[in-house]
Amino acid sequence: MEGFRVLEIKKSVFESNDREADKLRQELKENKTFLLNLMSSPGSGKTTTLKATIAALKDEFKIGVMEADIDSDVDAATIEKTGAKVIQLHTGGMCHLDAGMTRQGLQGLDTEDVELAILENVGNLVCPAEFDTGAVKNAMILSVPEGDDKPLKYPLMFSICDVLLINKIDVLPYFDFSIENCEKYVKRLNPNIKIIPICARTGEGIDIWADWLRTETRKWIEE
Amino acid sequence: MEGFRVLEIKKSVFESNDREADKLRQELKENKTFLLNLMSSPGSGKTTTLKATIAALKDEFKIGVMEADIDSDVDAATIEKTGAKVIQLHTGGMCHLDAGMTRQGLQGLDTEDVELAILENVGNLVCPAEFDTGAVKNAMILSVPEGDDKPLKYPLMFSICDVLLINKIDVLPYFDFSIENCEKYVKRLNPNIKIIPICARTGEGIDIWADWLRTETRKWIEE
Repeated sequence: MEGFRVLEIKKSVFESNDREADKLRQELKENKTFLLNLMSSPGSGKTTTLKATIAALKDEFKIGVMEADIDSDVDAATIEKTGAKVIQLHTGGMCHLDAGMTRQGLQGLDTEDVELAILENVGNLVCPAEFDTGAVKNAMILSVPEGDDKPLKYPLMFSICDVLLINKIDVLPYFDFSIENCEKYVKRLNPNIKIIPICARTGEGIDIWADWLRTETRKWIEE
Repeated sequence: MEGFRVLEIKKSVFESNDREADKLRQELKENKTFLLNLMSSPGSGKTTTLKATIAALKDEFKIGVMEADIDSDVDAATIEKTGAKVIQLHTGGMCHLDAGMTRQGLQGLDTEDVELAILENVGNLVCPAEFDTGAVKNAMILSVPEGDDKPLKYPLMFSICDVLLINKIDVLPYFDFSIENCEKYVKRLNPNIKIIPICARTGEGIDIWADWLRTETRKWIEE
C-alpha cells in the first residue's frame, strides 16, 4: 500500500481569491514555510524536475510536496520514492487551484515541520495563471518540444511567473526551438523573470535552479 | 496586412450547452458542413498537423479553419499560407470553447461554402473536454514528448475523442514513450477510439488520418 494520502479537494467558497491568497501567504510567513507554485503544460516534466529539485535540496530543507491532479495518483507515487513528504490532491475535474484549495492541500500535508512546500499544479497553461494560490513564488516549465512560440499564445502564464525553466534542452538538436527567441518573447511580457535552461532527466542546469530556490526559501524562512 | 479576420468571441449565454451543441450539429447537417474539433496540450503540433491535413484534402473538400487562441494570431497566419479559408478566434482568456462560442466562430468564418470545417481548440487537456462544441467528431493529439501516461492523468479528454493522433513519432528514440502502453491506457477508457501514430512534420501516417477524415466527412455531407 502506498504511504501517501489522497485528498479530494472541494471548490472554494471565498468571494475574493486575492484576499484569501494574501492571507495564506501571511500564515506561511508566520509558520516559516516557503510555498512554490510549479506550473506547466501536461508532459513538460514537472514531476521529473521536482525529483531532481528534491535530490538537490533535501539535506538542507524539510520538503513537502502537493501533487495536484484531476484523477490519478501516479505523480505522488513517484515523488514518494524520493523520501519527501507528499500528498496527492484530486481536483475533481477542476482545471486549476485557487488559494482556498491550496490551503486544504497544505492542511492535508501538515506543514508544521515543512520549510519548503511545493505545489505541482494541474498541467495547464491557461487557468492556473488566473488564480493566485497564495504561493510565495511562481515557477513554470516550458519544454523544448512545445515550441518557442508559447509565450505568444499563453501570455498571462509567462507574465505572472518569477522563474521560467526551459526543460528538455537535451533534445534541442531534434526540434525547431530557439532559446534566444523564447527569451525575447518572454522578456517582452515579463522583463524581471529569471530564465534557466535545464534538463531534469540528466540534471543539467539543476544546480542553478536549486541555487535560486535555496536563496528564495532562506530569505522567506529566515528573515 | 494579413488576409484573415480576427474575431473576439463572447461568453455564451445559453443555459444548456448540450442542447446548443445538438442544435448546432443539426444545422451543420442541413448545411452539409462537417465540423471537426481538434484538441491537445500546448505544443503538441495541432497547427502542423492541420497544415498536413489541409495539404492532403484540399483538392477534395472546401476547407475552413477556426484558430482559437487566447490572444495571438500566429496560428491563423500559418494556416492562411496553405490557401484554406481561416479565421482567428480570440477567447479573451477563456480556456475552452462551448457550442455558443463555436457558433460565433462558424458565423465569422462563413461556412456557406465550407464542406470540412476544423476548429483548433485552445491548447488545454482539461477544460475543452468538458464542453461539447457541436462538432461532428472530436480528435486529439498527444505528442511523444508529453509521455505515455497522459491518459491516466487527463482521462476525460481521452474518453470523449473519436480519434487519437500520436504525433512526433520521429523522436520516439529520444523519449521514454511506449505506444503499446499508451494504447493500453487509452483503450481502457475508450475501447472504440481510433489511434493513429503520425509525424506531422515528415508526413508519416498522415495518409491514414486523411483517409479517416475523408470517410467521415463524406458520410456526413453526402448521406
